[in-house]
Amino acid sequence: MITLYHCDAARSFRPLWMLEELGLPYELKMLPFPPRVFAKEYLGINPLGTIPFMVDGETRMTESSGICHYLGTKHGPTPLIVGIDEPAYGAFLNWMYFSDATLTFPQTLVLRYSQLEPEERRNPQVSGDYAKWFLGRLRAVEAAAAKSEFLCAERFTAADIANGYALRLASNIGLAKDFGPNVAAYWARLQQRDGYKRAVASEQKAGQEQNVAPRARP
Amino acid sequence: MITLYHCDAARSFRPLWMLEELGLPYELKMLPFPPRVFAKEYLGINPLGTIPFMVDGETRMTESSGICHYLGTKHGPTPLIVGIDEPAYGAFLNWMYFSDATLTFPQTLVLRYSQLEPEERRNPQVSGDYAKWFLGRLRAVEAAAAKSEFLCAERFTAADIANGYALRLASNIGLAKDFGPNVAAYWARLQQRDGYKRAVASEQKAGQEQNVAPRARP
Repeated sequence: MITLYHCDAARSFRPLWMLEELGLPYELKMLPFPPRVFAKEYLGINPLGTIPFMVDGETRMTESSGICHYLGTKHGPTPLIVGIDEPAYGAFLNWMYFSDATLTFPQTLVLRYSQLEPEERRNPQVSGDYAKWFLGRLRAVEAAAAKSEFLCAERFTAADIANGYALRLASNIGLAKDFGPNVAAYWARLQQRDGYKRAVASEQKAGQEQNVAPRARP
Repeated sequence: MITLYHCDAARSFRPLWMLEELGLPYELKMLPFPPRVFAKEYLGINPLGTIPFMVDGETRMTESSGICHYLGTKHGPTPLIVGIDEPAYGAFLNWMYFSDATLTFPQTLVLRYSQLEPEERRNPQVSGDYAKWFLGRLRAVEAAAAKSEFLCAERFTAADIANGYALRLASNIGLAKDFGPNVAAYWARLQQRDGYKRAVASEQKAGQEQNVAPRARP
């Protein structure tokens, strides 16, 4: 049985969504955000204190997009993974790495310096710099979504899950108003997927059962 | 023939190092940093203006750790890649994604707000926040390097290249003074590798031949 540690709306939503799309059984453990402050015992499980943390047998992982990659390859085969012999293999890998390193980290700066930090440590300059940075990089998604229903390989893959989460985060922190028309339409399509809806429902149900309140959305 | 666009000491050093370790032929195109300011024609090649950019036949990639992953799997087999049936497969994937999303992005904040921005836009608070953030995450490398010569699978892999570059960047921007003893020893070992030395020599030679000056190191 796979165990996934998750905070409401955090990037651990990526492997949660992947698990739902794969139809794999899993146990979802909800934590308050940020766990390193509100659930200090979690540091005994994941010394970095970061979310997600996934356990599958002897395997332990902390990188949300990397876990999606792992689940699809280790528990595949599945069309969610683009194979090495497909023409889109390089594009697929690029989107997988892009999703977190390029499209998510800048948003964490916006969130931190516009909302999470105490008033006196907030910083509109830095928050603005990285909103702009995020929207600059999002042009790659706008271009891809103008050409096809999905990011690569002409089908829904783990790359759409990994980058789709970055769009969910952007919506939650107030950046969706600046989405281009193709990103906006792409994000609307993703939210209509049964797998996405099941992941959202699973997150809500686990939060209620485990008495962990959802995080505020602006 | 593989073409790699590179700036001196930038994260495009990852695929350069990987190419040298694999012994693959490549063409190295040097650009001044940042290219989106000093080589605007580059935007016609990579609209994001980011470095690296790699071309291999019809494949185009921009993510430095993703390119290492691609090169090792597409042009393998090679012991630099941990296979899906090896016990360390999940750990390998985790380190690959960790290298850029978790261990490099915080350093770009330190660099930006302590050195690259004009004086009036520099920000010691943010620079300090992310130096601390980087060093917090580096504890995972310290723990791994305390146990083994390499990060995973008991051998040198692409994960050592991807994370080794993050240590090179830290050295270049003044963060190496806070390395733990095992990270420091690990980084010293990596720099002794022939593949690393060949990559550094290749970077220097291409810079001289193409008349692109190396970047200042503090």
